[in-house]
Amino acid sequence: MTSGKTRLPVQRISGERFERLEDVVVKERPVTIFFNDDELASLMCSPKDLDYLAVGFSFAEGLVRNKKDIRKVIVDDKDDVVWVYSSRPQKLPPNFAGRRFITSGCGRGLTLVDTSGTGLKLRTRSKLKLQASRVPHLMKEFLHKSRLFKTTGGAHSAALCSSSDILVFNEDIGRHSAIDKVFGECILKGIKMSGRILVTSGRISSEILVKVARSGVPIVISKSAPTDLAVKLADEIGITLVGFARGSRMNVYSAGWRILTRARTKGKAKG
Amino acid sequence: MTSGKTRLPVQRISGERFERLEDVVVKERPVTIFFNDDELASLMCSPKDLDYLAVGFSFAEGLVRNKKDIRKVIVDDKDDVVWVYSSRPQKLPPNFAGRRFITSGCGRGLTLVDTSGTGLKLRTRSKLKLQASRVPHLMKEFLHKSRLFKTTGGAHSAALCSSSDILVFNEDIGRHSAIDKVFGECILKGIKMSGRILVTSGRISSEILVKVARSGVPIVISKSAPTDLAVKLADEIGITLVGFARGSRMNVYSAGWRILTRARTKGKAKG
Repeated sequence: MTSGKTRLPVQRISGERFERLEDVVVKERPVTIFFNDDELASLMCSPKDLDYLAVGFSFAEGLVRNKKDIRKVIVDDKDDVVWVYSSRPQKLPPNFAGRRFITSGCGRGLTLVDTSGTGLKLRTRSKLKLQASRVPHLMKEFLHKSRLFKTTGGAHSAALCSSSDILVFNEDIGRHSAIDKVFGECILKGIKMSGRILVTSGRISSEILVKVARSGVPIVISKSAPTDLAVKLADEIGITLVGFARGSRMNVYSAGWRILTRARTKGKAKG
Repeated sequence: MTSGKTRLPVQRISGERFERLEDVVVKERPVTIFFNDDELASLMCSPKDLDYLAVGFSFAEGLVRNKKDIRKVIVDDKDDVVWVYSSRPQKLPPNFAGRRFITSGCGRGLTLVDTSGTGLKLRTRSKLKLQASRVPHLMKEFLHKSRLFKTTGGAHSAALCSSSDILVFNEDIGRHSAIDKVFGECILKGIKMSGRILVTSGRISSEILVKVARSGVPIVISKSAPTDLAVKLADEIGITLVGFARGSRMNVYSAGWRILTRARTKGKAKG
């Protein structure tokens, strides 16, 4: 497995002090994904778990839904190329034509066509609720796991969680690719996504919401901020969007009934 | 001028305390840029200073170099559409064809074709040097100016600086668009970019480096981390890349001769 980081010489300055040393820096590589031998996308990302990335990206683009849709995945770790083959013959929609360069933290082409017109019909039906007091526990475990970020300061993390534990975790220089890797692993390993929780280190923009909507995940938790468009989409789709989750504090922007506090549940179910 | 933020209802949870209030959230909108009536790109960004954004984006894509190349810019603030018209008749290269959706923090299509193959021949010739002790001053002023970030927590900032002052400043939900807005304002106002300093809140990836290389800016300072590919490009192009600029500390990853400390200049030019 390729490592997501490397060591580079650096001059560290502190006030008037100056020293030469080696520092750990996050890797960034152009990765090309083929879908049934059609070029799907080229992304700038961390060259690690490229099979998960390619499958998660194909999932986010609506090309595959589960493991049964995938015949095989081939990874060329040396040249950073991945081939995803679907079970049934399937060509890319005509708008996929042409080499599209897409990078870390980047938009995912057609996804946006579906959504910024709010044409998305993926209303979340999950009845999942989560005690607010679970959020700091999940965030603590999440931050503890974020190794790439801790050593390089240049990566985003994402995790699929149950109410109590992290089930799948990954990292990438891009917010989007970290989430794609998590969903891709879930698909390849047959791990259920619907009714579970996504934790992300990154800001929640509209495209992240669309990705999450496809997965059936009803709760998204971030230590960062959302955009207004992400909140609007979350509200329409019925996804619970939790931002600024820091310590025992958090902001709930949509579908707040899923987050239980003693104050809120007084007189209802026990908190 | 459209504001970059809006107010939304939010449920704030702190431990078992729960309150409903209004929170300031950063705006995200799909903005479409036309170049001589050809559709150049659609980006998810903060709908503010769209003329700067469109001109900066056109500059980053190599379509315009300075104010003389631009005949006029028309902004439709209501539908978030911008038209850039060049002074001379100019069609988009064939690979620009098709609607390319590009979002916050996103790759800029053809730019990458030029660079990840390191075909970029933009060696920086600037002799600019900067006292290390100036960096914390610039960063302090930079952070002070970052209003959108401070109120919403969801935006990136970028600034063009001299050794002592911020000359042009802007913000956007995307790292890339914040820089595009800064360069776009410079071009429209005829502010010299070469030989100056770019400060950014965001991580420095390869594409940011390419953008900076086009501008002739020889020093980039970020409070965040760089990627290894960005360091490699900076080294090849001769750009001084300063990361993790926090307080009086910083890491210099390339062309370190431009950053002067007393320790380094002992016996040479006076620090």
